[in-house]
Amino acid sequence: MVSFTVFKGSQNGKIVKSSSTREVGPDQVLVKVTHAGLCGTDEHRRHDDMVLGHEGTGMVERIGGDVKTLSIGDRIGWGFIHSSCLNCEQCLTGHENLCPDAEKYGSANLDQGAFGTYAVWKASYVFKIPSSMAPEHAAPLMCGGATVFHVLRAGGAQPTDRVGVIGVGGLGHLAIQFASKMGCEVVVFSSTENKRDEATKLGAKQFFATKGKTELDIGRKINHLIVTTSMPPDWNVFLPLMAPRGTIYPVTVSADHLELPYTTITRMELRVQGSFVAPRQVHKQMIEFAALHGIKPIIEEFPLTVEGITEAMEKLNSGKMRYRGVLLAQ
Amino acid sequence: MVSFTVFKGSQNGKIVKSSSTREVGPDQVLVKVTHAGLCGTDEHRRHDDMVLGHEGTGMVERIGGDVKTLSIGDRIGWGFIHSSCLNCEQCLTGHENLCPDAEKYGSANLDQGAFGTYAVWKASYVFKIPSSMAPEHAAPLMCGGATVFHVLRAGGAQPTDRVGVIGVGGLGHLAIQFASKMGCEVVVFSSTENKRDEATKLGAKQFFATKGKTELDIGRKINHLIVTTSMPPDWNVFLPLMAPRGTIYPVTVSADHLELPYTTITRMELRVQGSFVAPRQVHKQMIEFAALHGIKPIIEEFPLTVEGITEAMEKLNSGKMRYRGVLLAQ
Repeated sequence: MVSFTVFKGSQNGKIVKSSSTREVGPDQVLVKVTHAGLCGTDEHRRHDDMVLGHEGTGMVERIGGDVKTLSIGDRIGWGFIHSSCLNCEQCLTGHENLCPDAEKYGSANLDQGAFGTYAVWKASYVFKIPSSMAPEHAAPLMCGGATVFHVLRAGGAQPTDRVGVIGVGGLGHLAIQFASKMGCEVVVFSSTENKRDEATKLGAKQFFATKGKTELDIGRKINHLIVTTSMPPDWNVFLPLMAPRGTIYPVTVSADHLELPYTTITRMELRVQGSFVAPRQVHKQMIEFAALHGIKPIIEEFPLTVEGITEAMEKLNSGKMRYRGVLLAQ
Repeated sequence: MVSFTVFKGSQNGKIVKSSSTREVGPDQVLVKVTHAGLCGTDEHRRHDDMVLGHEGTGMVERIGGDVKTLSIGDRIGWGFIHSSCLNCEQCLTGHENLCPDAEKYGSANLDQGAFGTYAVWKASYVFKIPSSMAPEHAAPLMCGGATVFHVLRAGGAQPTDRVGVIGVGGLGHLAIQFASKMGCEVVVFSSTENKRDEATKLGAKQFFATKGKTELDIGRKINHLIVTTSMPPDWNVFLPLMAPRGTIYPVTVSADHLELPYTTITRMELRVQGSFVAPRQVHKQMIEFAALHGIKPIIEEFPLTVEGITEAMEKLNSGKMRYRGVLLAQ
């Protein structure tokens, strides 16, 4: 049995320090958490009685008897999906992120998460972090990086395509890098001019401040449009920027409805494609691709304490995080 | 110069008999119209001063000097797209139905259409009708058939997939046949029980009357859902029927907005795919596939006269057409 400290949400939204106890099963590993990314989804869970955090990196400290793929001392990361059935159509076709019985952040393993000193996970759902990648940079890739990389891969983005990214934040600043390194011409839309230089450094070829704009002239049209803002964009502005057969990806979790005019979707053969983090093989490719191309998040560090988590969440909510908060184990 | 009779829309919605004059250009053919399908899009144009009809079949009566692919006496059909630039990205990749400069029903060649005694078309945008296919059955395939066949092909429907069809009408009754003959398991949704037997005969394995239903239990989930009704369906009923990574195709022209909850699209990786008639190669394959498998529309015949057109349009509007009206040249 292992006991460890965890940080939970609570009904009134205050972060609560608590403790959990776990055994390490034969197919599991005990991970000493070193870093945890802060994602918008954690904020959505802030009022739930559950351990927060799903972008974890750490060190393997103990392995179950059946674990063959990991050793003590390995640096690993994990994300939103904890396990799946491995027998359904989705699992059998490499889409286990969509397994109806998948254990996921927010509905399973509520007694542990990335916001804690330790966690126990199935060895087959954690990912080795290459030595060239700093663990504080790896953490935000475990959900944010996987999400945008999967969009580009599953959506079939080609190096000759033009990729639009709406929003330069935790997801957007990674999407710009991945798409750019895939050879795509990246055009970025942000509300103001503030992030123009940074977006350009990350790989954007064009940048547009959209606040108050009712139309935009961007030249070549967009084949893949990744919407990373929590509010839906003004479709009257963005639909005319889409190329025929272009795809729109809403990647943030929003309580809103997607509302698009039928006629435009039909006449232009546009596609709206949902995407949910990533299957494990895609997740592995994402890590390898990021390591190969030196893709890393721009982060702000906070201590992994009640105060640190609270401060990081406030900064994320204020829209001032540049661009992903990472909590460091103390 | 050729002069011929045409039937036009008009401001007050009355069908007007008129005449047009055309020359036959070197890359064109003169077609003596024998049959014309009646499509919902014709109704949308009823108040416009233009010749109606875009599901035509007929006989080639004259060919331009450069035409090599057709001969006098050939039976041909044509549809929504009259020509395209052949130089843009869409044209160069076999998607000329999306060419920004395509000449289309409703915006080009307003002086002629399928509702007329003759029409002059580019030889490369008409399609030979195989001798095994009756021209009255070929006509509704030129837009309705092409539309639903393209959805299934471009959407990558596999023989092992489950295909849902909402609405048994001009498009729906063809979608059932095409999907069924592709080997797909077809499930049909109609407002009442009225069309159960016919849908089953056309190839449906399951049939559900949806009127008043707030939920449905259909067993195996749907991979491809073709929405052929002019009103958007109740997504609260239909989204839970979708398989992960399933695709929804809105194929009818509607002034409404498509409104879907973000969370479901994201969590299930659902896709919404627009589709606009079909490129020519797909159109050709559709004709061959229909001929091979004996797929034909169920039609009601009307004379190609002011009275016949008016009566057919009234029947279409009343929802009583079973299932496609075809106007016969007098």
